[in-house]
Amino acid sequence: MAFRRRLLAEFLGTALLVTAVVGSGIMATTLSPHDIGLQLLENSVATALVLGALILTFGPISGAHFNPVVSAADWFLGRRAGTGLTIKNLGGYAVAQTSGAVAGSVLANLMFDLAPVTFSTKDRAAGHLWLGEIVAVAGLLLLIFALGRSGRAAVAPAAVGAYIGAAYWFTSSTSFANPAVTIGRAFTDTFAGIAPASVPGFVIAQLAGLVIGVGLLLALYPTDDRTP
Amino acid sequence: MAFRRRLLAEFLGTALLVTAVVGSGIMATTLSPHDIGLQLLENSVATALVLGALILTFGPISGAHFNPVVSAADWFLGRRAGTGLTIKNLGGYAVAQTSGAVAGSVLANLMFDLAPVTFSTKDRAAGHLWLGEIVAVAGLLLLIFALGRSGRAAVAPAAVGAYIGAAYWFTSSTSFANPAVTIGRAFTDTFAGIAPASVPGFVIAQLAGLVIGVGLLLALYPTDDRTP
Amino acid sequence: MAFRRRLLAEFLGTALLVTAVVGSGIMATTLSPHDIGLQLLENSVATALVLGALILTFGPISGAHFNPVVSAADWFLGRRAGTGLTIKNLGGYAVAQTSGAVAGSVLANLMFDLAPVTFSTKDRAAGHLWLGEIVAVAGLLLLIFALGRSGRAAVAPAAVGAYIGAAYWFTSSTSFANPAVTIGRAFTDTFAGIAPASVPGFVIAQLAGLVIGVGLLLALYPTDDRTP
Amino acid sequence: MAFRRRLLAEFLGTALLVTAVVGSGIMATTLSPHDIGLQLLENSVATALVLGALILTFGPISGAHFNPVVSAADWFLGRRAGTGLTIKNLGGYAVAQTSGAVAGSVLANLMFDLAPVTFSTKDRAAGHLWLGEIVAVAGLLLLIFALGRSGRAAVAPAAVGAYIGAAYWFTSSTSFANPAVTIGRAFTDTFAGIAPASVPGFVIAQLAGLVIGVGLLLALYPTDDRTP
Repeated sequence: MAFRRRLLAEFLGTALLVTAVVGSGIMATTLSPHDIGLQLLENSVATALVLGALILTFGPISGAHFNPVVSAADWFLGRRAGTGLTIKNLGGYAVAQTSGAVAGSVLANLMFDLAPVTFSTKDRAAGHLWLGEIVAVAGLLLLIFALGRSGRAAVAPAAVGAYIGAAYWFTSSTSFANPAVTIGRAFTDTFAGIAPASVPGFVIAQLAGLVIGVGLLLALYPTDDRTP
Repeated sequence: MAFRRRLLAEFLGTALLVTAVVGSGIMATTLSPHDIGLQLLENSVATALVLGALILTFGPISGAHFNPVVSAADWFLGRRAGTGLTIKNLGGYAVAQTSGAVAGSVLANLMFDLAPVTFSTKDRAAGHLWLGEIVAVAGLLLLIFALGRSGRAAVAPAAVGAYIGAAYWFTSSTSFANPAVTIGRAFTDTFAGIAPASVPGFVIAQLAGLVIGVGLLLALYPTDDRTP
Repeated sequence: MAFRRRLLAEFLGTALLVTAVVGSGIMATTLSPHDIGLQLLENSVATALVLGALILTFGPISGAHFNPVVSAADWFLGRRAGTGLTIKNLGGYAVAQTSGAVAGSVLANLMFDLAPVTFSTKDRAAGHLWLGEIVAVAGLLLLIFALGRSGRAAVAPAAVGAYIGAAYWFTSSTSFANPAVTIGRAFTDTFAGIAPASVPGFVIAQLAGLVIGVGLLLALYPTDDRTP
Repeated sequence: MAFRRRLLAEFLGTALLVTAVVGSGIMATTLSPHDIGLQLLENSVATALVLGALILTFGPISGAHFNPVVSAADWFLGRRAGTGLTIKNLGGYAVAQTSGAVAGSVLANLMFDLAPVTFSTKDRAAGHLWLGEIVAVAGLLLLIFALGRSGRAAVAPAAVGAYIGAAYWFTSSTSFANPAVTIGRAFTDTFAGIAPASVPGFVIAQLAGLVIGVGLLLALYPTDDRTP
């Protein structure tokens, strides 16, 4: 697969994911103004459903990572067997994902008749939220690579969508779990936004989740049992 | 498959889809009068679930397009390999879909003890709504034909239902994404209705989404990799 | 499969289905007293999920009909090829399903600390509700036997659950769609109940839906294409 | 598979399950303070989705029981054919599951900035609740082992998630259905908590459900028809 096409898939997929997260957040706050829980229910159900659809759409082209920590784990876990990204491809993926995430916020803002970019004013900085991000990322990586290493990648679209939809609720941070998406969500001052000053803390927590998730994965699935 | 049977499948499937969209909208506004978001949640969940069931029901007969932009993309993308609709079949499909959509609105009105036809008074005309329709259609076509071109059509029923259920939330227009259904929904003055004067704008935006969606699809999946 | 075991499966499956419909209705009205739509959302989501699980549980034993109109269609459509129920088995199935449905209402009442039996006082008698039942049954039969005749019965559990979950919303009658369940739901004076006097009208409408559904099925799928 | 790895999988899986049950309960009560039903809807949807994901993650290692009654049934039903746990493994599993459940409560408390442990003050002791637990466990075991004995274990993740999500609603006890999880949920004084004094009653009811569930399973599926 030409690498250019893979980058296009990561860009488009991450953009549509962020469009969906931000857009459904705007719709939810507009239509359900009296109950924040109902807003999050609407936001999380929409995200779970679209994420599965997007992984199906772009998976055969790029693997549908849409997420630098997934790409980094893919590189690290596959670097010896040569089954994962190369370190150079990893850089390209991260750039495509991050720029896609920003573009997704802009598209959502435009679809809802807002200014293309307004930086979020929602502070999300606290130790218990960072713990939430660590749990969210570790669980996500365990799921994805457990499926990959046991030859069940075909169920990943539904499974990852389901996991993220649930993690909106069970992590205190509502599970951003994705550095690119975290950056993208700084570009909208709506329900799903995150203040730029809170972004670094979230990203650092996500990287800690990456280390823990990969460690647990290797303890549970030390070898890759896919048929070659 | 006799073409008459395929037209019957498109007529019935589109009719039941519109019956479900309109009927669940009426039920939702009647039972949840205080929160429009909750109404849309009820409406979108019902639509996502029934759409999957209807694609399963009618898919083996007609392909279960229920949507002229899907049929048009099917013709365009398959015209050389001879795997899609002919241009003449496309006309028949569009007529069956549109008349089915109108019949579906009438059936929903009757089931809820309303006059068989009342034209909607809900204006849906604005640039940001048209942008919503463009995004909705492009994403829908990317999903459907990505699945088709990679031999995964078996998961299309659940995937398309999930996508549309989410797109109710993340597009500003609540994702009509279908010219036949848009016309049908003009025939009911209830939650899911659209004023007749707003129909042309939506249809034009959907055709723009068709062009963009097919273009992106060809960039990502230039060839059809189904085993013949 | 010994016929006694098949009857046990139909009895238990229908009982648990009605327990779930009635029980989740009681829970919903108790916990969400202010919004009937939210009650129906909770009731319909629980029903959709459990119905899929119950069809998986009992399907290999009895076919998991839980519904006399499904059993009747199974007999009618398979009577020549010898693939369906015999007429005598049909009688046994209907008795097991109906007694199971009544037992299910009693179990739900007991689980929620109510008298084992109180007849419902909820009138459900009107032409537009009967039209709702006709649509609900016809669509259900089309789905089930479209899957059966095209060799896709493996997806029936999720698909039937999804269809019924949606039909709660898009039919005016909230889709009883089942004579045995209708009778069972007369034995509880709670959210999901139906006044005994309203039962005959619903059952007659369901039988009309049976005729229409089978007729449409034969128009679309005239032959059974399962591999023998 | 080294037994140590299997214990790690049971520990982590049960921990994350309880984290999700407790965490989503805290989020739901915080964000939707005015409607207990909406809280339970949010809690049950999150649980259903994450349970499927966790069974997928840990299934290939340990079977993903996360539940001593499931492990006990696995031992009992497979003890002759040698397909289940040994009695000694059963003890290890129960310890891993119970300690995991307690750890999961602590993690959820920490993620939501609460004291690591506060014992629940929510009394859940009444005959009709115990009946709810009996029904919940019997239905769960019927589902799991019906799938196992008919060679359909691949659909268990989604099916078990769906069943538990529904059983939150249709059983009066909101379906704990798991002695380890019941103990774990005593360690948090939040939505999903259970007062320590109510734990023994629930566990005894769950053991009664184990006996009834295994009995019904053997009546319906007397033999194990998996291909060896």
